Amino acid sequence: MTKILYAGNPDEWDEYRIQMQTALRNAGLNMLISNQYEDPKNVEYMLYAPNGPVQDLTPFTNLKLVQSLWAGVEVPLANETITQPLARMVDIGMSIGMSDYVMGQVLRHHLRTDKFSHAEIGDWDMSPPPLSIDRTVAFLGLGALGTYCAQKVADYGFRTIGWSRSLKSIDTIASFSGDDGLQTVLEQADIIVLLLPNTPHTTNIINADLIARMKDGVAIINPGRGPLIDDDALLAALDSGKVSGATLDVFRTEPLPVDHRYWTHPNVLVTPHVASSTRIDSASKIVVENIRRGEHGEAFLHLVDRSAGY
Amino acid sequence: MTKILYAGNPDEWDEYRIQMQTALRNAGLNMLISNQYEDPKNVEYMLYAPNGPVQDLTPFTNLKLVQSLWAGVEVPLANETITQPLARMVDIGMSIGMSDYVMGQVLRHHLRTDKFSHAEIGDWDMSPPPLSIDRTVAFLGLGALGTYCAQKVADYGFRTIGWSRSLKSIDTIASFSGDDGLQTVLEQADIIVLLLPNTPHTTNIINADLIARMKDGVAIINPGRGPLIDDDALLAALDSGKVSGATLDVFRTEPLPVDHRYWTHPNVLVTPHVASSTRIDSASKIVVENIRRGEHGEAFLHLVDRSAGY
Repeated sequence: MTKILYAGNPDEWDEYRIQMQTALRNAGLNMLISNQYEDPKNVEYMLYAPNGPVQDLTPFTNLKLVQSLWAGVEVPLANETITQPLARMVDIGMSIGMSDYVMGQVLRHHLRTDKFSHAEIGDWDMSPPPLSIDRTVAFLGLGALGTYCAQKVADYGFRTIGWSRSLKSIDTIASFSGDDGLQTVLEQADIIVLLLPNTPHTTNIINADLIARMKDGVAIINPGRGPLIDDDALLAALDSGKVSGATLDVFRTEPLPVDHRYWTHPNVLVTPHVASSTRIDSASKIVVENIRRGEHGEAFLHLVDRSAGY
Repeated sequence: MTKILYAGNPDEWDEYRIQMQTALRNAGLNMLISNQYEDPKNVEYMLYAPNGPVQDLTPFTNLKLVQSLWAGVEVPLANETITQPLARMVDIGMSIGMSDYVMGQVLRHHLRTDKFSHAEIGDWDMSPPPLSIDRTVAFLGLGALGTYCAQKVADYGFRTIGWSRSLKSIDTIASFSGDDGLQTVLEQADIIVLLLPNTPHTTNIINADLIARMKDGVAIINPGRGPLIDDDALLAALDSGKVSGATLDVFRTEPLPVDHRYWTHPNVLVTPHVASSTRIDSASKIVVENIRRGEHGEAFLHLVDRSAGY
């Protein structure tokens, strides 16, 4: 009788099975996980991926929790058959991986590493880059991942500012909100990191108007959501030099179509959606903690607020 | 009457003049700096670059301090006409710049950024890199710069170890010394950063024997000294894949000769000695602090120990 159903990516079942059984045992929970079920009414916890084998959750009438294996909530929220409590994946492994990506790409733009990678043989321009303490890195989006990464960048030594829908109070990060706040952030930022959720308010937020208000030579890093960027506007700004470089990990269509100009633009680095991968070992511990809470009648962690859209 | 003589790079004189006068004024010292002198016996403080216009210091018989503008001491120590107290440049701007370089290159190897830079159009391998907490970064050399950079890398979250001639005790860094310690460090390191001084003991320390004792696929970053590396041995290890990549900022001959294989090796990034540039504004403050100490009969900072060679 399957109480915990794995409805994630079938390719990851073997590793999830091992990691989940270990985590369940370590939590003192005498429960099994399966990727099969006989009666959907018996399933109380579902490990759910939006592109997984279960799309219609209507028959699962006794679910206590739908635990998404994805950090993003737009796709699960679009599934109208999910009426049960829905938790998103908030995985420290994912936070560290995202921070590694962001920090590496911030430093790549900061150090102009590409200039050296593409240098002519014999180029010997010894002029050093500015110091990190003299660079301003701006985060658009200060949710869990954005705040984690911004704090890492600030702790390292960059001047770090952030903008979010509601004003945040975070040590070491000058935070802004609203239209006035956005103007301030755009005027100051040398490097902009996009970690906003994808909502109707943020779609195409990086458009021609917003780019025009940025510093000349700004660099843009998008490990957040593809639709945040008006791609034609960004390509025009890359062509003109207004935007000096872009590192893009997410796209409207993935894999990025082979005829997309991003693949060949000299100042664009395309990465194949690697910034925010869930790590199965640490993710399994998060899932089991929520199952333990369900079994003990405690409140679940990381529930999605449907009305807010995240 | 010139008491403070600038004998550094003539190209940098204009900026040094401005920054030094500001720093002298801010320190309450009513003194002038010049790049000219009439009687060498009047000069009490010399801002000295080993490749600058003054090579014979014998006539400067009343020097209180030779303040080198370079961090490295091998070249000034080779000048036998320097018999006066010699201070090296220890500049927080240089430390930050070095740390930016090291952190950026550590993350570049960690994230395999080059794999994406060189990817075929359409490559979409979504397997993520390991997490920084699961990578070991080793520093060979834990002097002022090495310790500063190692602490930054450790604070960020990498597992960080270090090796130096004398055993150091540094929070957050597992430190080793001696031959046994070197063996431990080589066995554990995924990424090795070279910040050793250039002494007879360290010349060619990265040779075929040492490389053979490293992990397969190790990455090497050298912002330290060119002669630390046996270039033929490193190139052979890059060819075989034993060393997965190298970032090299310093070389036996600089500029690196155009026919050197480093320029064209696909797994080598050559940078033109940009990791440890002195920042004139922060360097001037350091120099003025030493002049202030001289005027008040206090001990100078950062004096070179000739017998130890650093």
